[in-house]
This record gives sequence, C-alpha cells and structure tokens, in this order.
Amino acid sequence: MALKVAIIGGSGYTGAEILRLLSGHPQLQVNFISAERHAGQKVVELYPHLNSLTDLVYEKYELGQVKKRAEVCFVCLPHGKSMETVPELVAEGLITVDLSGDFRLPDGESYQKWYGFNHACPELLGRAAYGLPELFAQDIKEAEFIANPGCFPTAVLLAVAPLLSSDVIEPGALVVNALTGVSGAGHKPKLETMYCQVSENMSAYKIGGRHQHIPEMEYYLSQIAGKKIGISFTPYLVPAKRGILASIQAKLKDSYLEEDLWQLYQKYYQNQVFITILRQGIPQTASVTGSNLCQIGLAVDARLGQVTVIAALDNLIKGASGQAIQNANIKLGWPEEMGLLEGSYFP
Amino acid sequence: MALKVAIIGGSGYTGAEILRLLSGHPQLQVNFISAERHAGQKVVELYPHLNSLTDLVYEKYELGQVKKRAEVCFVCLPHGKSMETVPELVAEGLITVDLSGDFRLPDGESYQKWYGFNHACPELLGRAAYGLPELFAQDIKEAEFIANPGCFPTAVLLAVAPLLSSDVIEPGALVVNALTGVSGAGHKPKLETMYCQVSENMSAYKIGGRHQHIPEMEYYLSQIAGKKIGISFTPYLVPAKRGILASIQAKLKDSYLEEDLWQLYQKYYQNQVFITILRQGIPQTASVTGSNLCQIGLAVDARLGQVTVIAALDNLIKGASGQAIQNANIKLGWPEEMGLLEGSYFP
Amino acid sequence: MALKVAIIGGSGYTGAEILRLLSGHPQLQVNFISAERHAGQKVVELYPHLNSLTDLVYEKYELGQVKKRAEVCFVCLPHGKSMETVPELVAEGLITVDLSGDFRLPDGESYQKWYGFNHACPELLGRAAYGLPELFAQDIKEAEFIANPGCFPTAVLLAVAPLLSSDVIEPGALVVNALTGVSGAGHKPKLETMYCQVSENMSAYKIGGRHQHIPEMEYYLSQIAGKKIGISFTPYLVPAKRGILASIQAKLKDSYLEEDLWQLYQKYYQNQVFITILRQGIPQTASVTGSNLCQIGLAVDARLGQVTVIAALDNLIKGASGQAIQNANIKLGWPEEMGLLEGSYFP
Amino acid sequence: MALKVAIIGGSGYTGAEILRLLSGHPQLQVNFISAERHAGQKVVELYPHLNSLTDLVYEKYELGQVKKRAEVCFVCLPHGKSMETVPELVAEGLITVDLSGDFRLPDGESYQKWYGFNHACPELLGRAAYGLPELFAQDIKEAEFIANPGCFPTAVLLAVAPLLSSDVIEPGALVVNALTGVSGAGHKPKLETMYCQVSENMSAYKIGGRHQHIPEMEYYLSQIAGKKIGISFTPYLVPAKRGILASIQAKLKDSYLEEDLWQLYQKYYQNQVFITILRQGIPQTASVTGSNLCQIGLAVDARLGQVTVIAALDNLIKGASGQAIQNANIKLGWPEEMGLLEGSYFP
Repeated sequence: MALKVAIIGGSGYTGAEILRLLSGHPQLQVNFISAERHAGQKVVELYPHLNSLTDLVYEKYELGQVKKRAEVCFVCLPHGKSMETVPELVAEGLITVDLSGDFRLPDGESYQKWYGFNHACPELLGRAAYGLPELFAQDIKEAEFIANPGCFPTAVLLAVAPLLSSDVIEPGALVVNALTGVSGAGHKPKLETMYCQVSENMSAYKIGGRHQHIPEMEYYLSQIAGKKIGISFTPYLVPAKRGILASIQAKLKDSYLEEDLWQLYQKYYQNQVFITILRQGIPQTASVTGSNLCQIGLAVDARLGQVTVIAALDNLIKGASGQAIQNANIKLGWPEEMGLLEGSYFP
Repeated sequence: MALKVAIIGGSGYTGAEILRLLSGHPQLQVNFISAERHAGQKVVELYPHLNSLTDLVYEKYELGQVKKRAEVCFVCLPHGKSMETVPELVAEGLITVDLSGDFRLPDGESYQKWYGFNHACPELLGRAAYGLPELFAQDIKEAEFIANPGCFPTAVLLAVAPLLSSDVIEPGALVVNALTGVSGAGHKPKLETMYCQVSENMSAYKIGGRHQHIPEMEYYLSQIAGKKIGISFTPYLVPAKRGILASIQAKLKDSYLEEDLWQLYQKYYQNQVFITILRQGIPQTASVTGSNLCQIGLAVDARLGQVTVIAALDNLIKGASGQAIQNANIKLGWPEEMGLLEGSYFP
Repeated sequence: MALKVAIIGGSGYTGAEILRLLSGHPQLQVNFISAERHAGQKVVELYPHLNSLTDLVYEKYELGQVKKRAEVCFVCLPHGKSMETVPELVAEGLITVDLSGDFRLPDGESYQKWYGFNHACPELLGRAAYGLPELFAQDIKEAEFIANPGCFPTAVLLAVAPLLSSDVIEPGALVVNALTGVSGAGHKPKLETMYCQVSENMSAYKIGGRHQHIPEMEYYLSQIAGKKIGISFTPYLVPAKRGILASIQAKLKDSYLEEDLWQLYQKYYQNQVFITILRQGIPQTASVTGSNLCQIGLAVDARLGQVTVIAALDNLIKGASGQAIQNANIKLGWPEEMGLLEGSYFP
Repeated sequence: MALKVAIIGGSGYTGAEILRLLSGHPQLQVNFISAERHAGQKVVELYPHLNSLTDLVYEKYELGQVKKRAEVCFVCLPHGKSMETVPELVAEGLITVDLSGDFRLPDGESYQKWYGFNHACPELLGRAAYGLPELFAQDIKEAEFIANPGCFPTAVLLAVAPLLSSDVIEPGALVVNALTGVSGAGHKPKLETMYCQVSENMSAYKIGGRHQHIPEMEYYLSQIAGKKIGISFTPYLVPAKRGILASIQAKLKDSYLEEDLWQLYQKYYQNQVFITILRQGIPQTASVTGSNLCQIGLAVDARLGQVTVIAALDNLIKGASGQAIQNANIKLGWPEEMGLLEGSYFP
C-alpha cells in the first residue's frame, strides 16, 4: 500500500509539480496539501492543468493534521519560512524533504551573510543531508532529513564534480555562467516576471558575486575537491518557462583531449540513471524538459588549454520536485528512479 | 506480451510523439520506424529529447520488414503519400491507423477539390472508420482500418456535436475560429515557421473557405446532425508550439441558459475519460498540453441569443498521436485510455 | 515652437509609448508626467528603454501644475479614474485626449451596465468626439475633447465600416473574433499576465458577450450603418506583447467577388495614410508592430456567401498612443501623420 | 540633396534593416537593392512590414547599375561571397561598407583556419578599416573601405576595451559568455532556427573555441591592449529574435571598487552618443532593442577580486545595420548619429 504524502506550502510551482509527478508514482500518494493564502480553494483553480489528476483542496498547515494524514513531507515553503516548520516535522519522525535553502548551508553565519536572516535553529544545520543523490547518496540514506539542493547548484555541482575529484583543473576561481527559465522566480506576480518584461528579453542579475546559491555551490564543491573552491557566478534570465543551462569554464592542468575527459565523466557517472554524458552534440534544455534528467557535454579549447562543460536540466524537476522525490525514494530504500522515468516532451 | 508497432514516416512530430507516448504503454512496443531521408540515422539525432527512451534507428520502408516486425502500424506519412502505403498494410491484415488526411473524406472528388490530387485508391475510402472515438467508437471497432482525424476537426467536432445532435441551434453556417500552434505545420524547415517569423506575431491563413479540413468537418458534422452543415472557418497561427483553441459561435433556437447547455454537454460526454466540460472558467491550451484531454467550455450571450463554445486540446496528442493510440486501443479491444493517462504539464 | 504636453497617469504602457513616440514629434514636447505611486521616480527606472530619450521624473498630478506647464493633455488613467480628472482639464480649455473608456459611451446607463460604475459626469458624455480619425475626423476637429477608442474597437470598426456603409451584408449579428497581445492588460503585475501563464498558452476570455468594448463597437457601428448592429464578440489572449488581429465574418447579401469588395475598401479609405488594404496576402501583426498602421485584408467564401475581413494593428500605437497623437494633431489643425510616420520593425 | 545607396545582397535581415533605418535618414536614400534568388520580387513580398516605406524591387547585381545608381554601397552578402564583390566596388571609388566577415581579419591564413576558405584577395585585407567607431573612428575616416564588425565582437570589444587600455586586469584568457537572438542566424529556413526548436529552449553552440568571431575579437583586443589577448568564448542561442547580451569575467590586478571602474568606463566613453554606462541596474537587451545603443554595466566581486562586465545591444542595429550606417556617416564627414537617434521600443 502506498505511503501518504503531505505537501507543505504547495501553492507554488514546486508543489504543483510534486503533485503532478506523484500521480505516476506507485508508492506515494498525496493526501494533504497546505497553502495559507489559498486554504479552502481547490488545487485545480490555481492549476487547471491538474484537472484530470487531483481533487485536493488547499488547507491551512497544522502539525496534527500532517501527522495524522502523512508519513512523508515535502516542504515547499519560501526561504526563511521553512526553518520554522521543518524542525517540528523532523521531531515527529516524519520523512522530510525540504526544498527551500534553509538547511543547505553549514552554519548560521552563512545565512546572515547570504540570505540576510538569523537562522531559527542553527543546531539542525549539520543534521540534514544535502540531497544531491549522484554525489551524496549515502548521506541521504542516513541523515535525519534532507535539504533539497537549489536548481543552479544541482546543475553546477553535477557538471564540475568529475573535474574536481580528478584534479585535472588549475586552482583558482571557476567561472560559472547559468541561464535560467522564469519559473525559478516563483508563482507570485512580480514586475520582473511579467510576460511583457521577459518575452524577447535577455538579462543578467545578481552579478558580481551576489547570488545566494554561491555559498551552497562553493561549500559542496570544496567538499568534493578536498580544498577550498571559489566560484565567479553570473546568472541570466531568458524567455523560457523551464530550464537551467549552466556552463563552466576552467583551465586544464595538462593537455587533455576531449575523449579523455569524456571517459572521465562517463566513468564518474557510470551507473547513474539520470545523468547522460553526451559524446556528440551539446546539451540543450529542450532535451531534458519534463524529465528528471541532467545532460552534460564538454569541449576542450586546445589553443587556450581550457575546458568548457555544459549541463542542462529542468529546474522544476531535477532542479527541485523530481529530485525531491528521488531523495524520498532513496530515504525509503526504494529504487531512486521510482515514478520518475517519464521522458522529456518536445516540441 | 506486448504487441509490436511500426511507425511509418516517423521523422515528423507525430511519429516522435507516438514513440514518446508508447514508451509508457504496457501493451505496445515500437519495433520499427521508417523515414526515407533519414534512414540510417538514430532517432535521437533528430529528437534528442528521446535520449532516455529509445535506441531505434530510422530505416527505409519495406512491407516485408513491417510484416515481420510489427502487428500494429501507425502511418505518419504526408497527405498524398499515405494512400500509396496504407492499402498494402490493410491488405496484409495489419492493424492500421493512418494519421494523414488521405482516408478521411468520403469520395475521390473531394480530394480533387480540397487536396488537389487524384486519389490513388478511392475504393478504400468507405472502408475506413473515422477515428474520433467519442463520436464513432463502434465504427472504429468494426472497420478495416482507421483514418485518424485532423487536429482542427477533432476540436470542432467534439465542441459542436452535442449542439447538433440535440437540435438547439438555428440552421445556417456555423462560424468557427481556431488558433493553432506551430507544430501543426510540421517538422520541415519553412520560412513561415521560422522563429523570427512566428514569435510575437499573429496571423490568419487560408481564410475564405480554403482550408482542407473544412470538408472533413462538414461531412462528419452533417452525419451527426442528420442534415447538411456548412462551416465558415478561419484558422490562425499563433506563437506556441502546441495547441488548438477552437471557438464556435451559433444562434440558439430558444433562450437556453448556460446551465441547460452545460447539462446537455455533461450528459453527452458522461463516460468519456478524455473530455472535460468546464462549469467554471474557460478552456485554455496550457491546461491540456501534454495530455490526451479535450476541455470544453461554453457561454450564452442572452442579448443576442448566441452560444459560444470553446474547445482546447494538444494538437500533437488528442489532435494526432494520442488519439491514434486511443484508436488502436479500441481496435484491439483494450481500454481506450491505456497508456494515455499522463496529465498535462505546466508551466 | 513646440507645444507642451502633459501625460497624466503615465506609468503604464500607453504613457510610456506616448513619451517614446513624441520624442520624434516636431511640434509636441512632453513637459510633465504624473503617476501617483511612482512620484519622485525617474521614468527610466520603470522604463529603461527610454534611457536615451528622457530625463523626466514622475510627479503627483496637480491641476495648477498641468495648466502652467502644458497646453495638451493625454490622460492615461484607468477606467473609472479618468472621469474624475478629464472634466477639470476640459474646463481649463486644455486640449485633452482621454485614452480610457470613460467618455466613449453615449450615456450613464451604459457605464452602469458594462463597466459596473456610476458615471461621475454623464453631462460630459455627449461633448467628446470619438477619436477614430478615419471615420470621425470632423467631430474630432470640432468637439470639446476627445475620447480615444479602445484597441479592439479601432480594429473592428475600421474593418467593418466599409461593409456597413455600403449595405452589402445581411442584417443579424456580426461575428467578431479578435486576438490580443498581453500589453493590453496593462503594466501592473497580475497572475494572468505572468510569463509562465502566457507563454505557449492560448486562451479566450469574457466570452458570451461580456467584454466592455462591445457597447462601444455596437454604438459606433450602428451610427455608421444607420441602424442597430449587434456583435457576437470573442476575444483571445495569445503569447505576444503587442498586436490586435481581428476577424469579422458576415453573410453577403449578394454574390460579390473579392475584387468588388477590395475596390469598395480601397475607395472607402482612399486618402487614409494609416490604412492599407492588402490585395494579396493576409494581414499579420508583425507587419504593423511599431507603427500607427492598420492593415486590412479580406476573402470571400463563395460556397457559403460569406465574407471574412481581417484587420491588424499595434494595440499600443494605432490602438492607443499613436492614435491619441493622431487625434491631437487633427485637433491642432496639423497633418494627422505628424510625428507618426515611423515604419514597423521586424523581426 | 541626398546621396544614393545600393544594398547588395539585400534579402536578409541586415539588408531589410538598412532599408528601414535609412527611411529616416535625411541624407541617404536607397536606390538599388540586389538579391539574386529574389530578383524581380518586390521587397515587401519578403518583408511586409516595410509596406509603408518602400516600393523597391530586388534586382540582380550588376556593377554597371550600381555605379550609375549609387554613391554608397552596403554589402550584405554572406561570408565568402562578399570578397568577390567588394574589390570591384572599392576599385570604382564607391563608399563601401561590408557587413560580412570577409575583410575583418588581418591575413589570409586566418580565413583558412577560422572560416575554412582561401581568401580571394588577401591584398585588400590591410586596406579596410575595422568599423567600430567608438574605438577606431580615425581609421574609418581614412581607410579605403570599411569592414563592419560582427555582432558578438561589437559587444565584447566595447565591454572590454576600457579594462584593457587601462591595464587593470590580470593577463590570461578572458572568459566571455554571450547570449544571442535568433536573427543572427539569418533569414534562410534551417532546422535550428525553426520556432519549435527555439521557443522555450536554451542551447550553447560552437563551444570549446570554435566560433569564427574569436580571431576577430582577439585581434582587435590585442591591438587595444598592446599585447596578445586570448578569449575563452561560449555563445548561447536563446528564444529571442534580436539582441546580444555579452558578459566578461576577469581577474582584477588590484582591489578596485565598482565606483572606480565606473569612472574609468564613463571617462573612456565620455562623448560617445551610442554608449551608456549604467551606474545602477544591469543592461538588458529589451532596453536597447530597436536602437543603435550599447548599454554597459559592471560589478566587482570583492571576495574573488573579479570584475564582471555586461554589454547589451541589438544585433541587427548596433551589431550590424545601424553600425554600418554610423560608419558611412563618419566616412562621409557627417555626424555619426545622423538618422540613428530612434529610441528603443518596449514592450
């Protein structure tokens, strides 16, 4: 019999996407969904595309209800709100995957500096696994709860990990550029995400080391490399609803061929069902949209001794809701791909 | 054990979509895919989004191969080509669904007039079922093979059938307007479907009764109504990859309330798994994209005694490949929704 | 020396567009722009594309300031707000063009019924000219002030006027369908106009005779026809920032050829600089975007005795700000095209 | 009296854009436009948006005609074709601006290596000015003819020149990332630029040092720096018709403040009418689309000692046709901004 799921803070895109993805999961069934402002409304009023999949009604969050009606919790609250709710779910022994940034960084000061708030329960920071299964599967199985990675960090960590763990690139800041679709900015109406502002426009934002995903990337990359890694990070907003396309440019220590590096990546990710290393062609978001896949490609500029790695994923699936389900599967001892094998849609 | 499927003429969007959809079908498995110009190429070279789903290679069409390797055929050849291949598949007793327009019209003259070619085998025209399952399920079970409807006719027939079968509207031409996404124009590069021509543009085409879907709509609507029905049809191309949004405006014979008509539609489609009649809200393509659903809504303008019906569907699924699979399911005696219950994706 | 212009309620798209267009006008110069919520902010903070064109700062509206600093006023306030401000501008003898709907309808009851508010000064309703220059130029010269038409009515009236004034179509409701870009819904963030809601989506809205532009279209069409005209109107929102594409379907009284009707239109608009009647091809919004042009095309369906007329315009220019300037030009006795001859941009 | 202009190879976007822009130029008038495949067709058949601006008909190229009918030539032929025609125009003493890449590189070997062809007249390579007016105005005035820069190089050179000429960054490869709109790939139908391939997709291309604009950027940057400069360049295609958004990441030699660098840029470009250095905000393409402007912004990441510079321009105007006219203006001794002061359009 399927386990029951609560989605907490479910009025945004990630909540709707968990609901959609779990409609095809054989062992997890959504039984509770909360959204303070929308309590009493049917989910399909906000998300008419779910018409054929759900009759659920948004409710107000209440711990008692969640305990009674769910064994697994996906927390989709905004940054700064999640840390108020996650502790009590964990304390009750519920399987908890937090999609916010609230438990991804190692210490309270980092939150002060990058998110601008005092962390409400810094003592819990060390007790979450960082839920990037291809890199930290053992932690996910063992930790008390799971901090689901950000969309940019998922793409960047997956793209860079093989280089750092093999020590083939020069020390010094990695240069990372990443394009994101608009859904990453959330479901609430804002001027910056209006159709007329975004369509046919390209913009950069939070340039000069101001994006809150930087410490998350640097912390986990440093773990992988076994030394301190810095990232010069430039994010862009482009006219697309979904998708992350991240590129990493780095100086090679030696004159590697593309084939060498391709072998390195292939081996590093050899049994990973959701990672594809392209031998020909270059990843594009249209090839992964709708799926939990991450495609990675690379090229060597022999003239300069530089490597460029490109990773593409769907920010709402591998970059959020799909990965959250993958984490829950692992935590529950199931195959990580359970309910997540749907392919990409195109066009 | 699953039956084996051949996709003939599979390099276009409908072929790729059948391949994608059947990857989730428990009883049908694609075993052969042909494409003359692309023979020898892997499907994923043309459609990298199928990367995780298929290793198939395009082959040249050959009847012997098809017979040997498949029991069910989906023919995705262009109009005018299909009629050369379908007869031999039918003669071999293969379950055949033809997605072209070549067997939808009742007689050879109609092809001369609307498609501009002499039909190669007019004797087969009466032997195909018109594959709109919600209206002609019995025919589909019984006929020798299936002519899958056009995307516009699917939307329009589903939207109008309840009105015509209940005789609630005045005689006289129905006014039909329908917006389509770009994928309806096919996968081959043309000036009209280039990004720079389509993005941020709205255009009408084949106005003044020139679209080849008109005789198809008029013929089957006349069957439903039991009298001759004419359609004044205006199609539009809008900046979207997928979707049909069709509206029908007609004069009511009497002063019906919206509620009356809603009941009429509800009853007409009461057990239809893929039809949703909206009581509130108006259909939009984003609510059905990615699914085999057709959403229908309506409103009455009491001032003028007019009814407006709106239907939305995904032109590549309910308007083509999904419906083709639904037809095959019916023909094979299986539940029509087998492998087709995936919900819509959004955003 | 140039006359000075005040833009009242200038934080929306129409205000920004008047500012942009007037930067190329030899006789009008913007000297005051108000926006209550943005008072104190530079215009370029809200509209960085105006960077090279203006240094203006939004101010709070004050009649004394407007009198002192402007001779010509463009009022871009929302419906229901404009009627509070226009009367005092008119009383001061300022040349006033109101872009809202507040003075387009003939009587107070119509506002009650279609806009849902009591009109604040119904006595002024008969004293405004309806600012559609191609049809009502004399009124515009003579009336006390100008009510600038809505974007849909501009397209529909221009498309239908020649048919109605020549009595070539059957009585009975005209069927009008019109696609609009997103900018028509304004600059304020709303869920319906977010990128993720609009991109790749097609929707209809206010179907069944609920759009507030209906009485405006019916009133002026009836004036042109010399008898009561009803309109069955269906508007659609499509993924485009700018543009209106309107179609009219009507039954012809006689068997006219396309050439006959083309001559009729050509003659009706023979000296109109902003109207193009296409002899070949069908209007599309990309051909008029960025200009004050309206393109009109037509086709006859001889089978059904129906005519389809298509009109395309830029909703922010010919459908709003450009037409407002054209009206001011006429009122001031200048050539109507002054400052408005910029062509369309593409792609 | 205006000088007469010939556009050679005018069926693409850059030819159409020169035609549109020159319709507002007081001293240049297009009198001849050639396009081999379209000879005999009216320009408006291909570009209906030019309906109100031109009656020109495409002709076949013939030197005699050009000499007789024009004093100024804009050559919009493809790379590899231009070098066959430009020499005879120059020999005739016609003012010639070549928009192709055929005369931008310093020597024949570079063409062999990066463009893959033998240059037809390497002896002319040193006699063209590189037409980037903000950096090479004197050359433009003096040289025999003008090689108009590529769209990427225009953005990148303008963004980096102040840093290199002031020696504030560390030696070593500059990391350059640049997003481009689809019109850069030209007007001819190709699979990669179809709407269904591009919309909602993000992709990188020619990664690993394979883009033909690299030698152009490196050569002129090296000239500015007075030493050899290498560029690690990653281009992206995003769903937009127009626009280049380029970013440069580099290591600073010292701990500069943003304010210092802002002053440096401000001073470097102090009298340049088409360059805007943003003190607040970050450049976006929507702020320059439709204009000949280049907006530049920057940020310092003090943690890493890195600077990020962002430049935005319209690839068809400042990146091609507008800059070509700017070059002709300079060559003719006129103000460089003549006919080019139109602002950006938005939304």
